[in-house]
Amino acid sequence: MDILVIGSVALDSVETPFGRKEGVLGGSATYFSTAASYFAAVKLVAVVGEDFPTEHRQFLGDRNIDLSGLQTRPGETFRWKGRYGYDLNEAHTLETHLNVFETFHPEVPEGYHDSPFVFLANIDPELQLEVLKQVDKPRLIACDTMNFWIDGKREALINTLGHVDILIINEAEVRQLADEANLVKAARMILAHGPKTLVVKRGEYGVLVFGEHSIFSAPAYPLEEVFDPTGAGDTFAGGFMGYLAATNNLSDEAVRKATVFGSVMASFTVEDFSLDRLRSLCWEEIEDRFRKFQALTDFGGLD
Amino acid sequence: MDILVIGSVALDSVETPFGRKEGVLGGSATYFSTAASYFAAVKLVAVVGEDFPTEHRQFLGDRNIDLSGLQTRPGETFRWKGRYGYDLNEAHTLETHLNVFETFHPEVPEGYHDSPFVFLANIDPELQLEVLKQVDKPRLIACDTMNFWIDGKREALINTLGHVDILIINEAEVRQLADEANLVKAARMILAHGPKTLVVKRGEYGVLVFGEHSIFSAPAYPLEEVFDPTGAGDTFAGGFMGYLAATNNLSDEAVRKATVFGSVMASFTVEDFSLDRLRSLCWEEIEDRFRKFQALTDFGGLD
Repeated sequence: MDILVIGSVALDSVETPFGRKEGVLGGSATYFSTAASYFAAVKLVAVVGEDFPTEHRQFLGDRNIDLSGLQTRPGETFRWKGRYGYDLNEAHTLETHLNVFETFHPEVPEGYHDSPFVFLANIDPELQLEVLKQVDKPRLIACDTMNFWIDGKREALINTLGHVDILIINEAEVRQLADEANLVKAARMILAHGPKTLVVKRGEYGVLVFGEHSIFSAPAYPLEEVFDPTGAGDTFAGGFMGYLAATNNLSDEAVRKATVFGSVMASFTVEDFSLDRLRSLCWEEIEDRFRKFQALTDFGGLD
Repeated sequence: MDILVIGSVALDSVETPFGRKEGVLGGSATYFSTAASYFAAVKLVAVVGEDFPTEHRQFLGDRNIDLSGLQTRPGETFRWKGRYGYDLNEAHTLETHLNVFETFHPEVPEGYHDSPFVFLANIDPELQLEVLKQVDKPRLIACDTMNFWIDGKREALINTLGHVDILIINEAEVRQLADEANLVKAARMILAHGPKTLVVKRGEYGVLVFGEHSIFSAPAYPLEEVFDPTGAGDTFAGGFMGYLAATNNLSDEAVRKATVFGSVMASFTVEDFSLDRLRSLCWEEIEDRFRKFQALTDFGGLD
């Protein structure tokens, strides 16, 4: 099954204790698409400026990502500059230049309207709703958001949540959105707004998935070298949605496996700057790491 | 197999957003012993003052904990007063009165010298070593410590670690002890000091276990009501050591199951103040929650 993703394509400048990169490929939709492309066909709706390098377009095309929904507008591409300290858990944003992204209005191309799987990356919840008006009853809609929208556009966000099957956000956002410190209670409150599944990203602590009748916990892969955490969450979402779309299975069991595949993809992304680790990643490595997640979590049964 | 534990027995005053309790039963050795007593016979070496209530002694005795190593000294029992905020992750110590614990020198009674399993709860590493001089080659020695000793008695602590099989400490202590932000690297550095296994407690994020050739990750049980986190770490250690002693199996597989049993016991402890939840806890509930940990973490294999 195909996946339609709407989000940002950006040029990032990133500084970590291990090095610094200027103007490298970034953006939520970019990380998502690249990860998802290992599992399913992806259609990307986003905007870039006239400065967007051909090589990046080439890279995404080579991954079989359909770029007919990637608008090019006069002006510069969205640019983000951030720094990570030694703990690597928190990005300190140094500069944000929205550029052409500031006036972005997603236009879903004619042939994309029947996309069965839709991922709304972290953009204005009003734009997320605009997208949903342009598609015909997808089989699955997932979305992301951030503190900025929870704080500034709560009503629009809650409205969007009413149309979404899976919400994928981080732990602090869960607590902020529900205004509740206890994660289990907060999850229930969010599920009451519409989503059937809440995926809680906890960085180096892994992922908790709350369904209607079940909770699933997946660890993050313990890595000796984390180079650049940028895009880990969107890569997770890409692997997660990719697996669901590939199997066209939305059972609780499939969601669990999808969570592990998402975690596998995220664990690779952070091993190098930008999307560089994914440039060389092959399917055998993905399966191998899936098995390592099994070895990491297996404890057998009661005797 | 029997377990010998050396640590504190205390009277705690605890304040959480959900209530407050004065002078309730606490202390590392108390939580450890009570949890371990569900699995194996426990011998407790600790000190209390003349004010220690008979009912607490009665409770421990009723759990079949051997109290012949529990010294009673002139003066008051160790008292700790703490407060937790809404996030419940960090205890704010308001008062510490060591009282009789200040001059505590562990004396291992005659009949305890051949104890096969030994747990050194969080006390001065020099005292931990004193204990080890009083026992005959135990099959397994595990120990805990805290930031205070890592900072103030690093050399003595490193010395103790050279005699210990399993170190059970929290995540911040791992980073502090190794002076390394990356947990995997920090774990390797600590294992190089002697222990064959490092158990990293991460509070609501669960536990990571580093062995010589293997890493195991267990989640914490997602609870809707956490009343009082006091003693969760020592309760974990009690369930963990209890399972190992009961099965007398030190394989990687047994350590994994022990980690889950430890997490099960800790998940019960935090459901009520002090040791109150353990007062009514029965074995069927423990097995039932073990199965819930399986349901929480299971994601099957590759298709």
